[in-house]
Amino acid sequence: MSQSSPVPRPRVVIVGGGFGGLAAARELANAPVDVTVLDRRNYHLFQPLLYQVATAALSPSEIAWPIRHLLRRQANARVLLAEATGVDLDAGSVRTTAGDQPYDYLVVATGAAHSYFGHPEWADWAPGLKSIEDATAIRRRVLGAFERAENAAAAEREGLLTFVIVGGGPTGVEMAGAVAELARDALARDFRNVDPRDAKVVLIEAGERILAAFPESLAAYATRMLERLGVTVMTRTAVTGCDAQGVDLGDERLASSTVIWAAGVAASPLAADLAGPHDRAGRSVVEEDLSLQGHPNVFVVGDAASMTGPAGVPVPGIAPAAKQAGRHAALVIEAQVAGRPTPGAFRYRHAGDLATIGRSAAVVRFDGFRLTGWLGWVFWGLAHIYFLIGLRNRVAVALDWSWSWLTRQRHVRLIIG
Amino acid sequence: MSQSSPVPRPRVVIVGGGFGGLAAARELANAPVDVTVLDRRNYHLFQPLLYQVATAALSPSEIAWPIRHLLRRQANARVLLAEATGVDLDAGSVRTTAGDQPYDYLVVATGAAHSYFGHPEWADWAPGLKSIEDATAIRRRVLGAFERAENAAAAEREGLLTFVIVGGGPTGVEMAGAVAELARDALARDFRNVDPRDAKVVLIEAGERILAAFPESLAAYATRMLERLGVTVMTRTAVTGCDAQGVDLGDERLASSTVIWAAGVAASPLAADLAGPHDRAGRSVVEEDLSLQGHPNVFVVGDAASMTGPAGVPVPGIAPAAKQAGRHAALVIEAQVAGRPTPGAFRYRHAGDLATIGRSAAVVRFDGFRLTGWLGWVFWGLAHIYFLIGLRNRVAVALDWSWSWLTRQRHVRLIIG
Repeated sequence: MSQSSPVPRPRVVIVGGGFGGLAAARELANAPVDVTVLDRRNYHLFQPLLYQVATAALSPSEIAWPIRHLLRRQANARVLLAEATGVDLDAGSVRTTAGDQPYDYLVVATGAAHSYFGHPEWADWAPGLKSIEDATAIRRRVLGAFERAENAAAAEREGLLTFVIVGGGPTGVEMAGAVAELARDALARDFRNVDPRDAKVVLIEAGERILAAFPESLAAYATRMLERLGVTVMTRTAVTGCDAQGVDLGDERLASSTVIWAAGVAASPLAADLAGPHDRAGRSVVEEDLSLQGHPNVFVVGDAASMTGPAGVPVPGIAPAAKQAGRHAALVIEAQVAGRPTPGAFRYRHAGDLATIGRSAAVVRFDGFRLTGWLGWVFWGLAHIYFLIGLRNRVAVALDWSWSWLTRQRHVRLIIG
Repeated sequence: MSQSSPVPRPRVVIVGGGFGGLAAARELANAPVDVTVLDRRNYHLFQPLLYQVATAALSPSEIAWPIRHLLRRQANARVLLAEATGVDLDAGSVRTTAGDQPYDYLVVATGAAHSYFGHPEWADWAPGLKSIEDATAIRRRVLGAFERAENAAAAEREGLLTFVIVGGGPTGVEMAGAVAELARDALARDFRNVDPRDAKVVLIEAGERILAAFPESLAAYATRMLERLGVTVMTRTAVTGCDAQGVDLGDERLASSTVIWAAGVAASPLAADLAGPHDRAGRSVVEEDLSLQGHPNVFVVGDAASMTGPAGVPVPGIAPAAKQAGRHAALVIEAQVAGRPTPGAFRYRHAGDLATIGRSAAVVRFDGFRLTGWLGWVFWGLAHIYFLIGLRNRVAVALDWSWSWLTRQRHVRLIIG
């Protein structure tokens, strides 16, 4: 505890144990500071694979680790399970459900939620995918729809067996492919009154095309592969209404009992409430060193921030960007504490974009090369296993994927809660 | 579907997809009947390992399988996700949340809940361990207690770090050992303000000794091993009160924020409401062929029934007994349908008793032999892996146990819900 040092050391409070917050904490491992990592969850979550929990392929524990355990050997770090409810910039203190946490340096890494574009009431019918609870709730809805269809009158079956995914980014594409495969392969022979292969999966994107961040050829390939899986891809289509029975697409009505939301970004409330300018999504528009305007000791990183690269290009809301930003904020803090010149502007290095469409199909743009098909899928899998934390989870996920690939089964088909 | 047969086949409705119900359904695979397996859960649960989910060692999916998937190749079986709310014996129909299900033969295999001995309000403070939701709720309480202790005033810590397990049967013994090991090993180095090794684990048993069904020498060994793990074993001690702050043991008060109930048996409401005699736990006292008195086409098996063996010895409420009973009921039904003489009285064959106390310690009485220590533990592990369903889960559980044994870690330390 800090009291054991003769001279009190600077207190660094990090709000959020996601990619950005964890990277910041680890970068500070050898700095002469006392680090507190605050999170309302006790675990760090590997969000890029959350859609696999939602579609019964992986267990929650395979993509989550106790933050406390990850930092157990870092002597200058403590972990606090508590929710941050506000920041008092003048007093230099974070208000939390476990009391005020005073800081000398603050890193806000609280991530983002989905945006329902001014219709928060849609969240009841179209859950997003940000937490383990979201993922198991979506799993319950998807698997439950097949169960209800098995016992429903013919007229109700079509809506029950229609799955709508809103948002054609990587999460929406991966979710649409995974739901289609679940119906085609894993569930195909398990029902008596319905054929899960009749399920309709619809991916809706308001923009010109899906996977806007990817090269056009890769997006076209992804569309073809999704259609081969039986997914209907609708671009230039905006959702104008949403309720328990389906979605409105302008004049068109699509009956569906299972709508999944993978569109839009809204900063976490803590970031949205910070002083200074914000973008339309509520994210803090930070200085080029990621500090809050007028508060050189407060940093906002990852999805909570609106960060721009050297040429004013927006930094994407993906895990590698959050990690790099967290590390950068930590380096600035280290330099300030040591009285050294700070590293200055954050320079985001974009390594690439990856999305999987299904069994043996993925799109990859990475450094100099592009991959599709089986090779892309293997690259996607290896990259994700590499970025998982801990040997145990790497082995477990690799085995689960191998087993799923061989048997076409999903082993977490539990309707819970 | 039955409509495709020219002559309608006898309808067998099985309520409950646990050990008894599933065994009955499988035994009927080649019988000229239409089988409906009804369960309010979509999965069959391997309850003997549920305590490992509650103590962060296994994921729910490793001990649960979709009933629908287990019966997918059995052409005469259909599975219905619905809750049975009552039985109309005169009309020959089960009332369910998915409509009435008429039957020619009925198997009630609805299991049991814990009994709070006339104090149902204790359930709020002392959850039992019967479902996956129970297990993850207990996991949340146990892990949450350490989190709260880390940030609590010294005066509150003792209650937060005291874990009380009520009931000295196999479930209580296994739970007490697992909680003690969790604190001693997996959590030991992860906290800054508390030392999880200070946690107090208390096992309370009202009877003369723990593991009443085991030989006395094995129970004495189990007590010694539990004490070596730091568990306080209190026998001849009855819980007389229970609230959010702890339990009353007569005049004594034990402060504890985490009380786990592993005592008493109460039949499921469906079984308790059936016509005919019941025992004090509400279980149907069945005829020697497991049929309901006066209803030769209705059978009650497993924990829902009060079954007695040839010499009037009560059949224990364990998985092998439920399986044998389910199979027996199916054989009686098959014989009745075929017009053959029925197999008559149910003859329970007791194979043995097993309980693990912790890392490398278990007690086993099996057929002719007894085992303790490391050998008992290996036997216990192999027996449980053998009885799991499916290669995938056997491999996964074997790997998880090996990994836990080597690293002393638990990999499902998630506070969810």
